[in-house]
Amino acid sequence: MSGRLIGVGVGPGDPGLLTLNAIAALKEADAVAHFAKEGNASNARTIAAVHFRPGVEELALLYPVTTEIPKHEAAYREAICAFYDGAAGMIAARLDQGKAVAVIAEGDPLFYGSYMHLHVRLSPRYPTEIIAGVTGMSGCWSAAGTPIAQGDDVFTVLPATLPEFELERRLADADAAVVMKIGRHLAKVRRALDRAGRLDRAIYVERGTMANAAIMPLADKLDTPAPYFAMVLVPGWERRP
Amino acid sequence: MSGRLIGVGVGPGDPGLLTLNAIAALKEADAVAHFAKEGNASNARTIAAVHFRPGVEELALLYPVTTEIPKHEAAYREAICAFYDGAAGMIAARLDQGKAVAVIAEGDPLFYGSYMHLHVRLSPRYPTEIIAGVTGMSGCWSAAGTPIAQGDDVFTVLPATLPEFELERRLADADAAVVMKIGRHLAKVRRALDRAGRLDRAIYVERGTMANAAIMPLADKLDTPAPYFAMVLVPGWERRP
Repeated sequence: MSGRLIGVGVGPGDPGLLTLNAIAALKEADAVAHFAKEGNASNARTIAAVHFRPGVEELALLYPVTTEIPKHEAAYREAICAFYDGAAGMIAARLDQGKAVAVIAEGDPLFYGSYMHLHVRLSPRYPTEIIAGVTGMSGCWSAAGTPIAQGDDVFTVLPATLPEFELERRLADADAAVVMKIGRHLAKVRRALDRAGRLDRAIYVERGTMANAAIMPLADKLDTPAPYFAMVLVPGWERRP
Repeated sequence: MSGRLIGVGVGPGDPGLLTLNAIAALKEADAVAHFAKEGNASNARTIAAVHFRPGVEELALLYPVTTEIPKHEAAYREAICAFYDGAAGMIAARLDQGKAVAVIAEGDPLFYGSYMHLHVRLSPRYPTEIIAGVTGMSGCWSAAGTPIAQGDDVFTVLPATLPEFELERRLADADAAVVMKIGRHLAKVRRALDRAGRLDRAIYVERGTMANAAIMPLADKLDTPAPYFAMVLVPGWERRP
């Protein structure tokens, strides 16, 4: 008898953006796993913990490295792969006991999330269910009240880590865009938007679905370092009827 | 005393993908508005109606045209603009009475949805709140169990209505993509994917979050007309560690 893996999207931050399916999965899970940086609380856990079964087994999956080693170095890849292998093994042990294990993920589990590393290791071997979630970017454009894409718009998600000329090229080539993982790349993103002729439409969003959200035209934001999860929205729908 | 406009995302189809905030908004709304084609049930209403207040006023907003007139013709734009103006006027009359009016939208209200036409007409004049929803594309890749984008992937949403060479160019230039509104464009999308070297990864999804979903490699799908809302997923994360 094999257990069941459930990838549970818990949405972008506001606990009210949990879905009924996510809550039902948490109510029945025998164990709940969540990712965090050592010494930090898991954001997904903060969003969803009120729905855990009392006394449920929790598996805290703590990244061994985040930004201490550059991502392209072999040492980073080795450490992070060993971590995901170990986490998958811990979960597999529960699945082999016939348990239902929910892995909670901020936003949507299969859209830029750590859960995917477990999914590719476990879903070929165990029954797996995904509960889609509201993405961080949906949370941000909703908080900003900004229609992002309409009709035949081409919409693109870009990581701010791209080289400046690539950002510029792609921002000029899309009707609508979201630039993610702003962190220390704000000045570069601003220059790329300016050269792409899109700076005047761009909106800066920090902690989009939290009580202390900061939302403003990018033109009004200083080039001080932004949080890693800050985003820049470039709304499309320019040919609005 | 002015009312309140609430754009409520009801998710991609599974009523279990409604959020707590969406349900709370429907419980308190004085009126609920929904879009549909004349003679058809509103999909958003089908998903969410169980949460309407008993006896709530419903505003059925029925498109005067959908595909009968080509979109680029002046007659289409005139008919559809007059329709949105009229719908906004109907809602404004309730807002002027101090009522809370929820407009329900499949997926996410500000991501390729009709609600946006009301939002741009009403949100400058009335207090407005958006409740983000799970998008149709999240519902589709979750149903398929397919990680769509990871790490520094560039992710692009393309309407299948684009010319073939544009589809090919953009599919070759993105790490991950979703092609929407497949309808009668399936053969063209297949050719563009083939020439972009991405056909082997492509997944066809029809009614992703419904009981009668059809999910298969695009290579196995015949070129018969697909439903308008069918999608093709092109998963990224090719350099998976």
